[in-house]
Amino acid sequence: MNVVTHIHELKELIKQHQEKQHSIGFVPTMGFLHEGHLTLAKEARSQNDIVVMSIFVNPLQFGPNEDFESYPRDMERDQRLAEAAGVDILFTPDVKEMYQNEPSITMTVQKRTDVLCGKKRPGHFDGVVTVLTKLFHLVSPTNVYFGLKDAQQVAVIDAMIKDFFFDLHLVSVPTVREEDGLAKSSRNVYLSEKERQEAPALYRALKKGRSAVENGERDVSRVYQLIEEELVQTCGEIDYIEIYSYPELEPLQQLAGQVIMAVAVKFSRARLIDNVIFHVPESGEKHV
Amino acid sequence: MNVVTHIHELKELIKQHQEKQHSIGFVPTMGFLHEGHLTLAKEARSQNDIVVMSIFVNPLQFGPNEDFESYPRDMERDQRLAEAAGVDILFTPDVKEMYQNEPSITMTVQKRTDVLCGKKRPGHFDGVVTVLTKLFHLVSPTNVYFGLKDAQQVAVIDAMIKDFFFDLHLVSVPTVREEDGLAKSSRNVYLSEKERQEAPALYRALKKGRSAVENGERDVSRVYQLIEEELVQTCGEIDYIEIYSYPELEPLQQLAGQVIMAVAVKFSRARLIDNVIFHVPESGEKHV
Repeated sequence: MNVVTHIHELKELIKQHQEKQHSIGFVPTMGFLHEGHLTLAKEARSQNDIVVMSIFVNPLQFGPNEDFESYPRDMERDQRLAEAAGVDILFTPDVKEMYQNEPSITMTVQKRTDVLCGKKRPGHFDGVVTVLTKLFHLVSPTNVYFGLKDAQQVAVIDAMIKDFFFDLHLVSVPTVREEDGLAKSSRNVYLSEKERQEAPALYRALKKGRSAVENGERDVSRVYQLIEEELVQTCGEIDYIEIYSYPELEPLQQLAGQVIMAVAVKFSRARLIDNVIFHVPESGEKHV
Repeated sequence: MNVVTHIHELKELIKQHQEKQHSIGFVPTMGFLHEGHLTLAKEARSQNDIVVMSIFVNPLQFGPNEDFESYPRDMERDQRLAEAAGVDILFTPDVKEMYQNEPSITMTVQKRTDVLCGKKRPGHFDGVVTVLTKLFHLVSPTNVYFGLKDAQQVAVIDAMIKDFFFDLHLVSVPTVREEDGLAKSSRNVYLSEKERQEAPALYRALKKGRSAVENGERDVSRVYQLIEEELVQTCGEIDYIEIYSYPELEPLQQLAGQVIMAVAVKFSRARLIDNVIFHVPESGEKHV
């Protein structure tokens, strides 16, 4: 595995692979790798000639009161895990390398942001699309891999690729979970023992909501209620329970089409998110 | 020459050339080609395996009171000229093809815009960088060609390429002029006979300013005055006379380094612009 910190080194390696017409799978991360990331890397490994992973804690996507400084980092362990997952090139630039000058041009996400986590993180997705535009240009990936745990991020990246005609394929990979259903996350390390025991309630609640819809429930407020009943059993504070079309993230007139149900719960030192995305048949669609 | 109007056709052709590892020279235009454009195409022809030209009058870079609707168009003539200049692929999409959905993400140019023409065309360069981002992703050029007549545009594109690590080389080509010095422009057709006779004053004024500096003048206000003296002899209305660092387009503490002198003059139906860019030795630099 090549570990490179400088853009010119990365570009040199990418150029060599492009000359060989290699397909390039790209997994952008903020590091502190867990099984979720490694699943992305393995998926990339199985679908491309080479796999590039980036580890870059992007300051532009953190708000002033967010955890940029304290975001967990462990580069030595990450390198070991990335190599074991089949990564060929690990790109680990510092902030100065990625933001060489004060930016002349800013990107602003106008849609799909004022819901879910985006609502409380103004500017977050602007930072995400800015750094991804840079990384996509540096890596020239054939396929890019993102986990559906951050379903809103996937929706925004989907819009970005379509808006700007990025010549790459977005592969969205299902959320990887602990045995008890808790979605894997770098921030799970911040949970107390009791919170860790309660945290699987997020996924339980979502499954309950989804089951209800699958069994014919079409009253959105009833579905909210079912999800809420499950979440209030934890000591965490419910941040949101939301149901939208996906990937448009628009309010639903009726429960139909591709739908996301998403929840966020604040525990003492960590805010956890989870979601399920599934297809609800249009009325009549089941008869086809 | 292949003339394509659809993105999927363009991408198919580009892919074929990429597989052959061809270098791609790209000349984005708004059509109504004149010798300036053709010089860019010929430059591209001499430096690349294939030449792609786009003709797209981009609505996003026109203000509400600007001449989008009346911007001159002559596709038949343009095709003939492009082919003669050695263009291999002419991409002529319509607006619906380039802006398929209402945009989810906007780009805003924060620097190099509040001077020269940008000052009076709010949002103009936002439209330029948006359409170029799309076009660059579609064409995957090795080299892109722009004329220095629109020096501010070149400066903004330079910033865009650096900010977002676009993997391409910007080639800025000197302004092509009529024999009497008038910079070639699609808008010259709007000049009356008298205005056309007076229009070379723009370049004459700039040359006078440059000569003064080259001969030791370092008083910026004196240089402005020399330029103005020349321009007031036309019936046009002076829109601006400006002197900045280039490509940063920042006010100069002193006349030194890479410098742009630019003018704009409003005639009855056309506003003409012109500029000269040249290097002014730092004090002491001449002794090196």
